[in-house]
Amino acid sequence: MSKVDITCLDSQQSDFEARLDKMLAWESVSDAGVNQIVNEIIERIRSEGDAALVEYTNRFDRMSVASMAELEMGQERLQQALEGLPVEQRQALETAAQRVRAYHEKQLAGSWQYTEDDGTMLGQQVTPMDRVGLYVPGGKAAYPSSVLMNALPAHVAGVEEIIMVVPTPDGVVNELVLAAAAVAGVSRVFTVGGAQAVAALAYGTETVPRVDKIVGPGNIFVATAKRAVFGAVGIDMIAGPSEILVICDGDTDPDWVAMDLFSQAEHDEDAQPILVSPDAEFIEQVKASIEKLLPTMEREEIIEQSLNNRAILIKAQDLSDAARINNRVAPEHLELSVADPEALLKEIRHAGAIFMGRYTAEALGDYCAGPNHVLPTSGTARFSSPLGVYDFQKRSSLIMFSDEGASEMGKVASVLARGEGLTAHARSAEYRIKS
Amino acid sequence: MSKVDITCLDSQQSDFEARLDKMLAWESVSDAGVNQIVNEIIERIRSEGDAALVEYTNRFDRMSVASMAELEMGQERLQQALEGLPVEQRQALETAAQRVRAYHEKQLAGSWQYTEDDGTMLGQQVTPMDRVGLYVPGGKAAYPSSVLMNALPAHVAGVEEIIMVVPTPDGVVNELVLAAAAVAGVSRVFTVGGAQAVAALAYGTETVPRVDKIVGPGNIFVATAKRAVFGAVGIDMIAGPSEILVICDGDTDPDWVAMDLFSQAEHDEDAQPILVSPDAEFIEQVKASIEKLLPTMEREEIIEQSLNNRAILIKAQDLSDAARINNRVAPEHLELSVADPEALLKEIRHAGAIFMGRYTAEALGDYCAGPNHVLPTSGTARFSSPLGVYDFQKRSSLIMFSDEGASEMGKVASVLARGEGLTAHARSAEYRIKS
Repeated sequence: MSKVDITCLDSQQSDFEARLDKMLAWESVSDAGVNQIVNEIIERIRSEGDAALVEYTNRFDRMSVASMAELEMGQERLQQALEGLPVEQRQALETAAQRVRAYHEKQLAGSWQYTEDDGTMLGQQVTPMDRVGLYVPGGKAAYPSSVLMNALPAHVAGVEEIIMVVPTPDGVVNELVLAAAAVAGVSRVFTVGGAQAVAALAYGTETVPRVDKIVGPGNIFVATAKRAVFGAVGIDMIAGPSEILVICDGDTDPDWVAMDLFSQAEHDEDAQPILVSPDAEFIEQVKASIEKLLPTMEREEIIEQSLNNRAILIKAQDLSDAARINNRVAPEHLELSVADPEALLKEIRHAGAIFMGRYTAEALGDYCAGPNHVLPTSGTARFSSPLGVYDFQKRSSLIMFSDEGASEMGKVASVLARGEGLTAHARSAEYRIKS
Repeated sequence: MSKVDITCLDSQQSDFEARLDKMLAWESVSDAGVNQIVNEIIERIRSEGDAALVEYTNRFDRMSVASMAELEMGQERLQQALEGLPVEQRQALETAAQRVRAYHEKQLAGSWQYTEDDGTMLGQQVTPMDRVGLYVPGGKAAYPSSVLMNALPAHVAGVEEIIMVVPTPDGVVNELVLAAAAVAGVSRVFTVGGAQAVAALAYGTETVPRVDKIVGPGNIFVATAKRAVFGAVGIDMIAGPSEILVICDGDTDPDWVAMDLFSQAEHDEDAQPILVSPDAEFIEQVKASIEKLLPTMEREEIIEQSLNNRAILIKAQDLSDAARINNRVAPEHLELSVADPEALLKEIRHAGAIFMGRYTAEALGDYCAGPNHVLPTSGTARFSSPLGVYDFQKRSSLIMFSDEGASEMGKVASVLARGEGLTAHARSAEYRIKS
């Protein structure tokens, strides 16, 4: 008797849409207790600065430091971590960084301007943010790839100071994470974490400089703190559980597809793997591969829970029907495991990242393909984008009227401002009209 | 005895920074009562749809309609509003729309891709959102310019459906707003407002289609509802009070500068006008102009309160010092009312929109210069940008590995995934390595 019992749907069922929606439903719960704890931590960091940051770090991370000086790591320490890595790991990290950097350099937006016939200049100035904060989780969930994916776009954007915070519970340091920080051009590292680290970055303390934006993943306390400080600083998305949707024509090795589904499922019990195929027999083959491969997996229990609770195997009418189902899901990751992925791409409207062809395992995108692995989850790909260089640049409109242009446009602005009852606006414009 | 008592600071005072920070401090209060009302409205719209929307509209807007059919306006009604305008207003509206459209067309980002030596393709697909919602306030604060500024970037981005909601309290319709909707390419108009309109756009009802993003200004109920539905849909910024910072070298007509300050102050009592000048005598002249002009203003009381509560006149050391002060404030609007604005621009790091030269009144930017008038407030120009076409486009990463590329990168991904303890990721990549 198998332990795996995956939800199977057919797009021709009369209640398909309702059942699909029910499986996709996900709302992060904002717990009143967590909110209260986080708000208290933020208040104390704002009022007491370093002293509160040291106290919280000693308490939550079971440390015993006397001052912030003991909670900062210098560049030498990061370099030491990089040099201490096995050659194979160091090379892999540097290859990944080089590819991620090369891809993100294509995203750099530049300033532009144009001049009208009467000499009026209009434009947009694009500049990097001054200073950003990067949250990196400590302990088990410490991912060096996440350091690269969050820090490199900021570095490419031209951000001068990248401040990383990473907790070291019980003093345990992750050498791969520090090495990744060295490779990605992180400026300063503080070994603090939790809501207290987010508050320190958002408001600044005597030692930790205030940043303009905070990015990076974290637990519920970190996510709640990011929501709370939003407005004082910018934040990236608050991510939901990871998702993959694989569209397969039935001709990929079912073991490959099963393992691709596992690679999302192993993230956590709430991760959502979805297979859509017009080939009912192939779906059965993937089920058999799942049964066969699951007992060989290190993270068997997590994968099993994800499969039983959130996975969906969907029989579609054809590949166009599969694309329609994808557009309804708007998944974080989409694999087009089909003979002609470029043809099918034309029917895809929403997905964070699209992995085309049977060779393009989603896992390659997590590490070294080049594009970012921070992607919109929970259907937000309908309106949001992968993390990118554009998230670390901001724009200012430029307007310089000639006397001629100000006179002509002053007349237009005057009519519209008076139409809105805003007479100071109108008179300000009218001063510039030539008599 | 004057009624105006404006805060004056000098950047050389020892407590200057602290006093400036105190004047700038602004935190929007999230009221528990408002939150509860809004959450209840959202829940009822989600569960009861049109019926609840009709009931709330009848109650809050003092209407007596029987069904949603009475709360939709067709394209003919919008055209009728446009054709009914006085010629001068219609021409001004169309000129403004044409200029805003032309400017925003420069912001259109395109898809890109590149192919590596081994045949691997990487890229980014840029596509418009499918459907967006535009909130337009009813009553006194109904601004046709706001319809243009919010709808035109979506239209330029290629969004197929732009759904506008605008309440008509007591049945009062604003013809200029409807005319602006006609000019800006709005698809459908529902005469509903408040938290109930936001909820209808976010989740959909039998009649109102669910959108991907909601933009546009509104009162505290609208802003609270937008925060609450964020995640289910995208939203634009929640704006704080309007701000202007004028840097003047002392050679602009002080009446012009006074009126430019008034044009922010007349928005509301919390609006913040700031003048920075190295010329102490000029600051006195502007004060005199303020005293002289204030009694002539239609919105005298609002302007007076804004001036007394939030305005600041700052004596700087020189223009570089003025630029430094600006960068600390990161204002929504910045006027460089100086002889050589292009030289000073080099020292400006943060501002939503920059109005260069003595002729470029900020009011021109509100209506018809071309750039957007929806701008980051409360110092958020440090990390955010004017509303633009980019707010209505989203990106998907494209990755298509050749068999060769997948084999090479599979090795890199495998090393990094095993370093992170994610063995399903590693094995998924390893399947694609050639033996």
